Amino acid sequence: MSKKKTDKIRPQILKGFRDYPPSEQIAREKMIAKVKEAVELMGFLPLQTPSLELAETLLGQEATNEQLAELFGFEGPDEVNMALRYEFTVSMARYVASNPELGLPFRRYQYGNVWRVDKPGPGRYREFMQFDIDIVGTTNLLADAEIIAAMTKVFDQLGIKNYQVRFSSRKIMNGLIRFAGIPDERSMEVMRVVDKLEKQGKEAVVRELGSGRVDQSGDKIKGLQLTDKQITEIEKFLEMAQNSANDPLTDAEQLLGNIEESKEGISDLRLIQNYLSLMNIEPEKTPVDLTIVRGLGYYTGPVFETVLTDLPEYGSVFAGGRYDNLVSRFIGQQIPGVGTSMGVDRLLAALIELKSLNLETSVSKVLVTVMDKEKLPQYLEMLNQIREAGIPAEIYVGDSKNITKQIKYADKVGIPFAVIAGSDEFAKNQVTIKNLKAGSKKAVQTSEREEWLKAEEIQETISIEKMVEWLKGELKQ
Amino acid sequence: MSKKKTDKIRPQILKGFRDYPPSEQIAREKMIAKVKEAVELMGFLPLQTPSLELAETLLGQEATNEQLAELFGFEGPDEVNMALRYEFTVSMARYVASNPELGLPFRRYQYGNVWRVDKPGPGRYREFMQFDIDIVGTTNLLADAEIIAAMTKVFDQLGIKNYQVRFSSRKIMNGLIRFAGIPDERSMEVMRVVDKLEKQGKEAVVRELGSGRVDQSGDKIKGLQLTDKQITEIEKFLEMAQNSANDPLTDAEQLLGNIEESKEGISDLRLIQNYLSLMNIEPEKTPVDLTIVRGLGYYTGPVFETVLTDLPEYGSVFAGGRYDNLVSRFIGQQIPGVGTSMGVDRLLAALIELKSLNLETSVSKVLVTVMDKEKLPQYLEMLNQIREAGIPAEIYVGDSKNITKQIKYADKVGIPFAVIAGSDEFAKNQVTIKNLKAGSKKAVQTSEREEWLKAEEIQETISIEKMVEWLKGELKQ
Repeated sequence: MSKKKTDKIRPQILKGFRDYPPSEQIAREKMIAKVKEAVELMGFLPLQTPSLELAETLLGQEATNEQLAELFGFEGPDEVNMALRYEFTVSMARYVASNPELGLPFRRYQYGNVWRVDKPGPGRYREFMQFDIDIVGTTNLLADAEIIAAMTKVFDQLGIKNYQVRFSSRKIMNGLIRFAGIPDERSMEVMRVVDKLEKQGKEAVVRELGSGRVDQSGDKIKGLQLTDKQITEIEKFLEMAQNSANDPLTDAEQLLGNIEESKEGISDLRLIQNYLSLMNIEPEKTPVDLTIVRGLGYYTGPVFETVLTDLPEYGSVFAGGRYDNLVSRFIGQQIPGVGTSMGVDRLLAALIELKSLNLETSVSKVLVTVMDKEKLPQYLEMLNQIREAGIPAEIYVGDSKNITKQIKYADKVGIPFAVIAGSDEFAKNQVTIKNLKAGSKKAVQTSEREEWLKAEEIQETISIEKMVEWLKGELKQ
Repeated sequence: MSKKKTDKIRPQILKGFRDYPPSEQIAREKMIAKVKEAVELMGFLPLQTPSLELAETLLGQEATNEQLAELFGFEGPDEVNMALRYEFTVSMARYVASNPELGLPFRRYQYGNVWRVDKPGPGRYREFMQFDIDIVGTTNLLADAEIIAAMTKVFDQLGIKNYQVRFSSRKIMNGLIRFAGIPDERSMEVMRVVDKLEKQGKEAVVRELGSGRVDQSGDKIKGLQLTDKQITEIEKFLEMAQNSANDPLTDAEQLLGNIEESKEGISDLRLIQNYLSLMNIEPEKTPVDLTIVRGLGYYTGPVFETVLTDLPEYGSVFAGGRYDNLVSRFIGQQIPGVGTSMGVDRLLAALIELKSLNLETSVSKVLVTVMDKEKLPQYLEMLNQIREAGIPAEIYVGDSKNITKQIKYADKVGIPFAVIAGSDEFAKNQVTIKNLKAGSKKAVQTSEREEWLKAEEIQETISIEKMVEWLKGELKQ
């Protein structure tokens, strides 16, 4: 297979996929480490499941073509239908169902990529990272409170000050739907429309519950054709939930207190409020919000959403709820659970915008330049000393002997300090250290910058013995 | 879509795939954190590329059916042929080729899953994790020395004492093949056979270079049909390489010193040896081993393998080499590079066998039990205190009110301490703490264990105020 020049291919990435360059990946890894720290302090255990699963595991036996089209699915080895996972919950359910000896309740976290054939768009990818935490094997609402608490601890750990974890219960909404005289089997349709409240506004929701509406792109959206009376009941409830002056649970009790399921939901939420207060979680951080329903079919009780109050346009970066029937898809006992899922890259973008996390392009703090190849023993000795002091550092291993080019490399990659030593310096047992970070602040334009890199004002000449201490001091600032 | 009982599906995992339960995943995450620490100190930067790539990117335009069959490939959205990556190097090359503004040399690390349609077997999976480090954009052999040094730093950081990073150069073997009168275009075939030396032994290699051999399962393996004279030259070289009493490079010089390419390879290796010694790397840890060739086609210079000398049966857990033409598959300048790749799960298994890493089944160190629901405020207050002291802890959130069942949960999951407090204790402002870890040492059999869990000798009653300090002290031991 000899290669001709004409065989070359264009370097391309798949539509809807992306690379994470070092600057973003450094930030991402830092963020994930912090999230892990927060949830491990609460006893959550890491689990990893495969990226590929049987299509039947992911979607059940009665998958619709629409559901299948959303997955990266294919016929794999041995003619088995498989697909890349689109979330973690079903795989966890499979894991729990096939490990009956597992200690329950099982507190687990899992993070990694999931894949969906969505229409790609700005900030919308077909491969993206999620971080899930769940507690399965219990109906105790203390678990729901722990999940809500965990979300607050994660936000705290990430240095986010202004956020809310808002919660409600599917039971209240189920009761409302019954109260409005809508058949039970239509309840999921209604919830999916109500779920659009925050993004689309009440008017759009009301129209979609009735005869339908036209969206911003001009597409027609079919309505649910509910009766005016049914819509009015839902509208009344949503208005109450949005404008409740006092405790929304008291208002809900007045409106739906006769409906058994709503009553149960209200008492569930009161209990969770009580637990959260005992956990010293600020009530303003975790308000009840009865407009929350979540679009997924499998929730059965409490549901949660979050908002970054300084950046509400990011939507709910962390959301979930209780699912008491999910594991029952598989043969084995029925196992109830509760959990929440974070969109890692959306929250990362928010953290960067909030300046809670700085983008760094380099890991190395110091570049040891190679001015004179004969002095390599000395350069490598300096490198050893710097690394042994715990300072990430590298020696220039490129092909250029030109010292200006070596410094430009450090500047381009974002390494803040460059160590330079030629025969002049070695004769005096000294090194010159250039502070490139100080330079990047002063000189913005490239032409200025080039001049500036040569300037002597941003460099210091010190004795070799003091080099490591000097660097330590500068890096602490 | 109402679900009937008969719709239930068997929880199954795909053939060749596996879950990583918490015990293994905890160890894996610890190991990866250590590897990252070692390579970041050397200035390597994290990069993430997509799991899916265009099939053409992964295999080039002239992929054989055999190569295609090794990938999880399929026709994805928009009728594009795509596949899951089977390694990282090609994706890095694509990244470098499409980012001409990148600062070079580019030191990057990448870890994550790769996928191959291998025949599954013990310890052999179709999805497995790799950790790669590479330096691209330089022909300077100081980069090759940095890669070798990085491997030693990783082993050191992981607490592995007995290992070797062995290296050779393709150039020496290329010269040998020419010296033996074998046409250049057959050199890769010859190297793939020589690469089997460590696993299959010299006799098998010699037979496969000649008329062929029969493997252990009885399958016939076709030979390369080299002449006896050609085989003898290779055999002589391998014997020399395996038994060299002095410096193998001196012996190689005597044998192949007239062949330009071998001469170059020998001088490359001498230079790398010199760099490693300047980096204070012990020469016994990084010997030259001229039998090393590596099976991959794209290597052009130095090649590396590693061995855990206490566990040689694990093979080379970390291996790589220099590839000066890889990036040239893509339109853009030709970019030389050098790198190495670690099989994360194989090395993890070795670390566990070497007891360099302990398997822990739990993150939580303390379970706060709930004996009396009325006392929940007190239990949650204790939980807060323990967590605030930085001790991972949880409260029992399961459905059982039975204290023995709660303790059994802690025991099953592997939580070492359980805090118990009922009205007796609270009256005296005390708590009882059971040491379950001590128990697991004493009682091995389940029946004994049940008795033992109730026993009082492994528990201590202390005042609530002293609880956190007491736990801290016990956990330090």
